[in-house]
Amino acid sequence: MRFAAFNSGGQAGLAVAGRDGQFHGLLSGSANYPGPLDVLIQKGSDALAAAADVLAKGAAIDLDKVELLPPLSAPGKIICVGLNYVDHSIESGFTPPDYPTIFTRFTSSLLASGAPIIRPKVSTQLDYEGEMVAVIGKKGRHIAEADALGHVIAYSIFNDASVRDYQKKSPQWTIGKNFDSTGAFGPYLVTADELPPGGKGLRIQTRLNGTVVQDASTNDMIFSVAQLISILSEAITLSPGDIIVSGTPAGVGMARKPPLFMKHGDVCEVEIEGIGVLRNTIEDE
Amino acid sequence: MRFAAFNSGGQAGLAVAGRDGQFHGLLSGSANYPGPLDVLIQKGSDALAAAADVLAKGAAIDLDKVELLPPLSAPGKIICVGLNYVDHSIESGFTPPDYPTIFTRFTSSLLASGAPIIRPKVSTQLDYEGEMVAVIGKKGRHIAEADALGHVIAYSIFNDASVRDYQKKSPQWTIGKNFDSTGAFGPYLVTADELPPGGKGLRIQTRLNGTVVQDASTNDMIFSVAQLISILSEAITLSPGDIIVSGTPAGVGMARKPPLFMKHGDVCEVEIEGIGVLRNTIEDE
Repeated sequence: MRFAAFNSGGQAGLAVAGRDGQFHGLLSGSANYPGPLDVLIQKGSDALAAAADVLAKGAAIDLDKVELLPPLSAPGKIICVGLNYVDHSIESGFTPPDYPTIFTRFTSSLLASGAPIIRPKVSTQLDYEGEMVAVIGKKGRHIAEADALGHVIAYSIFNDASVRDYQKKSPQWTIGKNFDSTGAFGPYLVTADELPPGGKGLRIQTRLNGTVVQDASTNDMIFSVAQLISILSEAITLSPGDIIVSGTPAGVGMARKPPLFMKHGDVCEVEIEGIGVLRNTIEDE
Repeated sequence: MRFAAFNSGGQAGLAVAGRDGQFHGLLSGSANYPGPLDVLIQKGSDALAAAADVLAKGAAIDLDKVELLPPLSAPGKIICVGLNYVDHSIESGFTPPDYPTIFTRFTSSLLASGAPIIRPKVSTQLDYEGEMVAVIGKKGRHIAEADALGHVIAYSIFNDASVRDYQKKSPQWTIGKNFDSTGAFGPYLVTADELPPGGKGLRIQTRLNGTVVQDASTNDMIFSVAQLISILSEAITLSPGDIIVSGTPAGVGMARKPPLFMKHGDVCEVEIEGIGVLRNTIEDE
C-alpha cells in the first residue's frame, strides 16, 4: 500500500494508491475518514489495511492539485544516521564507523514533498542529503537483528538538508540539522510488503536542478535497517511512528570542489526505486 | 507558583504549593481538574495562574505518598546543552566553546523524581549530570537576547544521566544520552516569577549517596538561558512546552580519578536553590 497525506481546502486528508497508480482518499471531515497515518500506525498493520480499503472507495485525488503533508506529522522520534555509506563517510573526513553515528531532528524541521526547503538567512551552506526512511510499526527493546524487520511497517524518503557551517560550529551536529523547514519527508509511505526486505537493493538518487548528484544503492549502507534497529534498541525503546532516517550516500555538496550548495530557486529531487520521488524547491528565508 | 504532576491510584493529578509549602491538588477524574501542565503551558501564563487557583482549593496532597511524574510528560523538544560550564568543559577534554554544543533527548528517556534511573545491562559507565531546566512558554524565532527571558515560563531540575561508553562510540552523543529511563526531570515546575531572571545565581549541587559531587552556581554557565534562547532561535522555532536542559558543572564521574560511576542501590540528588531536590535511586536493568 502506498499512502499520501494531504491538505485540501484547509482540511487534512489521506489517500491510498490503487493498482493503476491512481490515488483515492477522504478528507478528515468525512464520516468514514480513518484518521491520520500517525494514529493508524499506532493501531498496527490491520488498521492500516482496513484504512486502505475505506480510502480506496473515496474520491479520486490528484496529488498535483492538493498540498502534500509529511506522511507522519509528528513522529515520536526522528532518528537520523550519519556516515552510513562508506564513500560518504570518507568524503566527510571520517573513517567508516564500527558503530552507527546517530543524531536527531525535531518535528519543527519537517516539511512535505512540494513544500519549499528554506535556506536560512544566516547561512549560504545549505546542502542536500537523500536518504531512505524506515518507519517503525511495532514497539520493542532489545530487538534481535533477525526479528528487526518485523518492526518496520513502511518506508519513505527524506532529504536531510543540512546547514553545514552550523553543523560544524560545535562537536554536535544538532543545530545544522534542525533549522526550520529543512527536513523534507515524503511523498508517500509505502508499506514494507511492497519492497524488498529491509528496503535493500533499491537505487537511491538525488538530483539538483536535474543533474544527478548522488547515485547509489541502499545495499551500500554500512548498517542495514535491521542492524540499526537491533543496535538502537539496545538503548532505546522503539515505538510505532518512530522513523529511522538511514543515512546518505556520497556526493553531498560540501565534499565537492568547489562546494555545491543549494540556493533560492533550485529544485532538489530524491528518488528511491519503488518508493517515489521527493521533490522540493529551495527558497530563501 | 510551584507545580507537581503525580499519579495516585492510577489517575494523573496536578498539585500546586501554597505559601506554607503544603501542596493541594486535583485528580484528572475531578470535574475541576484544569488539565496537565503540558496543556496549560500551551495556553499560557494566565491559564497556569487560573489552574493554580483551582488546584489550591483541592485536597491536600502529600507528595511523599503519591508517585511523582515528570512535570511535562512529552516536551515538544528536549534541547540539551553540553559543555556549558568552563570547568566541566575542561574536565571533559574540550576547549570551552564559543558556540553552544546542543544535543537532544527523546521523551522515551524521561523519568520522574522518585523513580529509578536505570543502569542498562550493556554498560557500567552510568554518570550523573545535574542541570537546570528552562521551560519555554511562548513561541518564537529569531528572539533577541533582550527579549529571551519573556519566553521562559518556568524552571525545573534535570539529571542528565549519561552512559559514557555509548556516548563515545561515535562522533555524536545521542545514544549515550538516550537510554530508556536515564533523564530524570522534576520534581517541580517553578514559575519564572519566583526566581531570579534567567535562573541566575542559584546554587546547583549534585550529591551521590550524600556526598557532594558537583557544587556550582548557575552564574557559571558559559551561555546564559537568555543567550541560549537567542542562539537556538536563529535556527529553530521554540514553542511552549519545549525545554532547555542547560548543562552541567564540573565534577562528573567520568572525569574523576578513579572514575565514579553510579551503581545499583545508589541515591543521586540534584538540588537547585529555590527550585527543589530531584532525587532518584539507581537500579540495574
